[in-house]
Amino acid sequence: MKRSKLFTKTLKTVAADETSRNAELLIRAGYIYKEMAGAYAYLPLGMRTLEKIKQIIREEMNAIGGQELTMTALQSKDEWERSGRWDSEKLDVWFKTALAAGGEVGLAPTHEEPITKMMTAEISSYKDLPVCVYQFQNKFRNELRSKSGIMRTREFVMKDLYSFCKDEATHEEFYEKAAESYHKVFDRLGIGNDTYRTFASGGSFSKFSDEFQTICDVGEDIAYLDREKRIAVNEEVYDDETLADLGLKKENLEKVKVAEVGNIFTLGLRYSEALGLVYNDEDGERKYVYMGSYGIGPSRVMGVIAEKLSDDKGLVWPEAIAPYKYYLVGIGEEGEKKCAEIYQDREEVILWDDRAGVRVGEKFADAELMGIPYRVVISEKTLANNQVEVTERATGETKLLTSEEFINKLS
Amino acid sequence: MKRSKLFTKTLKTVAADETSRNAELLIRAGYIYKEMAGAYAYLPLGMRTLEKIKQIIREEMNAIGGQELTMTALQSKDEWERSGRWDSEKLDVWFKTALAAGGEVGLAPTHEEPITKMMTAEISSYKDLPVCVYQFQNKFRNELRSKSGIMRTREFVMKDLYSFCKDEATHEEFYEKAAESYHKVFDRLGIGNDTYRTFASGGSFSKFSDEFQTICDVGEDIAYLDREKRIAVNEEVYDDETLADLGLKKENLEKVKVAEVGNIFTLGLRYSEALGLVYNDEDGERKYVYMGSYGIGPSRVMGVIAEKLSDDKGLVWPEAIAPYKYYLVGIGEEGEKKCAEIYQDREEVILWDDRAGVRVGEKFADAELMGIPYRVVISEKTLANNQVEVTERATGETKLLTSEEFINKLS
Repeated sequence: MKRSKLFTKTLKTVAADETSRNAELLIRAGYIYKEMAGAYAYLPLGMRTLEKIKQIIREEMNAIGGQELTMTALQSKDEWERSGRWDSEKLDVWFKTALAAGGEVGLAPTHEEPITKMMTAEISSYKDLPVCVYQFQNKFRNELRSKSGIMRTREFVMKDLYSFCKDEATHEEFYEKAAESYHKVFDRLGIGNDTYRTFASGGSFSKFSDEFQTICDVGEDIAYLDREKRIAVNEEVYDDETLADLGLKKENLEKVKVAEVGNIFTLGLRYSEALGLVYNDEDGERKYVYMGSYGIGPSRVMGVIAEKLSDDKGLVWPEAIAPYKYYLVGIGEEGEKKCAEIYQDREEVILWDDRAGVRVGEKFADAELMGIPYRVVISEKTLANNQVEVTERATGETKLLTSEEFINKLS
Repeated sequence: MKRSKLFTKTLKTVAADETSRNAELLIRAGYIYKEMAGAYAYLPLGMRTLEKIKQIIREEMNAIGGQELTMTALQSKDEWERSGRWDSEKLDVWFKTALAAGGEVGLAPTHEEPITKMMTAEISSYKDLPVCVYQFQNKFRNELRSKSGIMRTREFVMKDLYSFCKDEATHEEFYEKAAESYHKVFDRLGIGNDTYRTFASGGSFSKFSDEFQTICDVGEDIAYLDREKRIAVNEEVYDDETLADLGLKKENLEKVKVAEVGNIFTLGLRYSEALGLVYNDEDGERKYVYMGSYGIGPSRVMGVIAEKLSDDKGLVWPEAIAPYKYYLVGIGEEGEKKCAEIYQDREEVILWDDRAGVRVGEKFADAELMGIPYRVVISEKTLANNQVEVTERATGETKLLTSEEFINKLS
């Protein structure tokens, strides 16, 4: 992309009501735009990062056999009444609205009910199991407060996967496979080392649920980490019994602030019983399907990474999710000419700051604010040795490469 | 994809309340699922087709300089009050709901207001113009009736592009470029020949607006076509004055039913005045930005194609948007073995019906119902001559190719 064509601008400051650091940086760098409290638009740079995060998640969900679909946000109340969650006292984040044709509909805060109901049309025999489906779908949650930037909003994209198994044993097997795939996702997103599978309070069907929590100063939770065993315990279940259950010792644990980037739940028969999702087993007996659900919020993850990896100069994206890998700056006529040559056909990896009349210092500051992994500078000075200067955003380290070495890196 | 892994089933019939042919076929073939009246989920096959339609549109929007972003569905009423469209008497398809934090929000039926407001932060000088942005975003419309399947629903994905120019002349130039790109989109979607740029009633800023209408028996509009000139007139503006304006002669026109697959509007200063979108021109004078909007509903287009190109056996997809290009069926042990060999690493183009215990006739019927462009059959008989049998869905024509010829086609 040529910077001169990109319609977004970088800003020195944001409105005073924006108190979260992730939103402040993302707005200043032109990634997002605040439409209202708790609702952000994703601008071209932001969309590229968000789509890259989604694609990594998609690949890992496909790898465990997930089949992608997309449900609707509009919800008829029938299914939710059957599960007992239509009542706003039970589920306190509903947006509800009236149909012109009569009746009331809700905006899905999650999708267990409609997915379970849909599956009653697809599952009838043990031969149809196990199966798992997922979607990237906007969720709506009528939050009372919203001051964590894109980490907690009233409308946000969520990857939710649902598994359907014939019994608890098959479920457990899939559940562990899903947990492993979550670790792969966070590794690929560049936060694997600081992300812990964390035991938290369970639901009706299991003692614990599993959260994936990332060490982060602005996190909303507290966890106790065992760095060696790479597991953690959420403060809410941190007691002697839990530690005994998990074979953890107090003296090996470290108390830290964490932000939830994913969670997985055993749902058991909760929804299949409520909505009549049954199958005939090998002996022709009707049984309820055993379910699990697995969530990751790509926009929340993006917010956590923005918080966690940024510095005083701006954002710092891991390569895998940066909107562009290189921020190209030419100095002088010869530098610009060489940039044009290198940029050719590489608009997907290079953001070329070709703006005329903008000081080099300003371009450098934008490259840093936007968190592009490598700043590449070409000037008459570097060209004198047929070189380009490559500076890594995360470390500040600068290397001189020959033009050929750099071009090889690109392809 | 292996058919044995695909969780969706084909159906012989659908519920009696589904009166539209597109929804009936798409449900029976496992492309969509009806969640409630006017709200459909897209299952794996349906998502693949929908995503291919979106990708074709995306590529053509990028080709005219469109920059992709994504706004929110939630709308604060401020912008809409400023444009006079918050009032449900003015815009009668609003869904509105209450914020837990106080106040009312709407679900966007379209996005002129928030996009115009957002642009006030990005546009300040003539140097920032022209610019155009687009999104694929779910729209919500509180329709009183919904009986056209996925052609008209209460929640649907829409590609909407907005252009921002310094004056009418620059706008007209872009507008024609956008119209051309629309023709390219419909050509690539396989309905170019039957899709006409159609003059319809204009808005505040132009005598006519332009619709793109596809000849279709269940279309909601009537148009008069000049097949030679490749333009059409919507019934609503069909009078002597219009014909004179457009240089059309009554005797050359053919009256047909059409379905709208796209529309483009000159918005002029309507929204920039209401929301204060101004720029400084070359002489430092403040002027309002001249706007246009350009819509295509990918799901609506999918519905129109399902209606238009289907036959008594089921759907018939153009190659460019079929979920898979080939439906592979092996007969006998040797046939299945060869299928496994050919399928290898080609799961993106082949749907292999590897189901055990399903009659060949049933597999053929499914291939037809799903509208996969080519059915490929491999049996001991075809293998005796080292051949595979390829039948084209649209024409029913069968060809025998050598295995090598077929494999070459695949790569």
